Amino acid sequence: MTGFVSLVGAGPGDPELLTLKAVRRLGEADLVLYDALVETTALSYAVRAQRFFVGKRAGRPAIRQDAINRLMIREARRGRRIVRLKCGDPFVFGRGGEEALALAAAGIPCEIVPGISSAIAAPMLAGIPVTHRGLASAFLVVSGHAETAYGPSLRSLAPGSATIIVMMGMANRVGIARELRAAGWAPGTPAAVLLGVSRPGSGQWHGTLDALGAHVLPVDDGDLPGIIVVGAVAGLAGLLSTELSGDPLSADGTTAARRQSR
Amino acid sequence: MTGFVSLVGAGPGDPELLTLKAVRRLGEADLVLYDALVETTALSYAVRAQRFFVGKRAGRPAIRQDAINRLMIREARRGRRIVRLKCGDPFVFGRGGEEALALAAAGIPCEIVPGISSAIAAPMLAGIPVTHRGLASAFLVVSGHAETAYGPSLRSLAPGSATIIVMMGMANRVGIARELRAAGWAPGTPAAVLLGVSRPGSGQWHGTLDALGAHVLPVDDGDLPGIIVVGAVAGLAGLLSTELSGDPLSADGTTAARRQSR
Repeated sequence: MTGFVSLVGAGPGDPELLTLKAVRRLGEADLVLYDALVETTALSYAVRAQRFFVGKRAGRPAIRQDAINRLMIREARRGRRIVRLKCGDPFVFGRGGEEALALAAAGIPCEIVPGISSAIAAPMLAGIPVTHRGLASAFLVVSGHAETAYGPSLRSLAPGSATIIVMMGMANRVGIARELRAAGWAPGTPAAVLLGVSRPGSGQWHGTLDALGAHVLPVDDGDLPGIIVVGAVAGLAGLLSTELSGDPLSADGTTAARRQSR
Repeated sequence: MTGFVSLVGAGPGDPELLTLKAVRRLGEADLVLYDALVETTALSYAVRAQRFFVGKRAGRPAIRQDAINRLMIREARRGRRIVRLKCGDPFVFGRGGEEALALAAAGIPCEIVPGISSAIAAPMLAGIPVTHRGLASAFLVVSGHAETAYGPSLRSLAPGSATIIVMMGMANRVGIARELRAAGWAPGTPAAVLLGVSRPGSGQWHGTLDALGAHVLPVDDGDLPGIIVVGAVAGLAGLLSTELSGDPLSADGTTAARRQSR
């Protein structure tokens, strides 16, 4: 008897943004392996499961990817139903592809349950549509963790031809802004930084590409995941309803930092 | 007394890919305005609502966008709770931004509930991770409805620097392939066409960029929405578990057409 692994996207944080299928798979699971930033409420749907944290915690070594793969394979061979719960979407910088390949190679039945990716949802919840008629008919989602990851696409893409969404790029924010300026993007292009959108304590910054390259921004880039948006659509944030984005904390002409609460 | 409008993403088709929040808003709604391709099961959650179809049907003129906006504003002013239900995600080529702006201008409270976008979910459900370590650290989602929409980004983006995902591009498939070849993408770059993934009757084609440019593909591109994927990650489809993608119907070396059933 072989078990079954579901690679499940938990969405951007708000547990109401889980899918019905994610909730069902959690309810059926014998074992849940979850990452950092997965909300407690999401785990509470796993009523009968053992739950293991396998994510990274600040200052502690993360469990190695191959150890996670081996654990899933071993437990599936014992006939257990496993949910591998990941933030956002398992296939958007979530290493879901690597896990699915390891499971396929071991002959373990596996399915993938998509989740709401914060690449699209974080801008949306901040009032920024990633596409908008007349402003953007394309968007580029790119990992900002290393120059080798973001350089080739950001350097080549024609300025203004797509909305830029950078994930995991807070540490390289200045280099990313410099790369876009060097590629010909106008200094006044609207830009935004979205921290932990749909989570408690989230924050936003709105300004221009030039200001994005400044070394200090009035946002806390501590433990919350940050997303950088560059493009004309970022200028719509102020026009759209702020139902979900809270009240501005401060505004100094080109920038406005906001805090959200749920 | 003013009502409230929720712009809600219905996801790629499978009603289990609705979010908990979408289901709750449907249950609370007095009025649901829904697009083509929204599934009957999704509408069934709107137990107390009037339901109006406002999408496009083949051969019939669509309701104009401004008429939809006026209807939402009028009904919200009557105090009704309205769900504007859109396929996929409201802000990914869904004109959600335009509707949100119209509501904001009219002073109508509005929220946006993100949905699973088929831009990411359709490749995933076909076994293609849009990002994958060593293969793709970025992806570009672009509208294929007109050359002016897809040309600037596809012509400029450095070949191989991002996975390309083209939505609404089936009619321009040949021109899109030609544009990528002219920009320097290798003819053997893996490519896929995904029709109506997560819907009954869906189909897939897997091959190369060169073959994508051929005039006839062994897939039915009739009424189902089609998504084109180009990039090294498209080559992973065959390696990943096919739990969700059904059995191959045919295979002739470079291409394989598949049918899915639920």
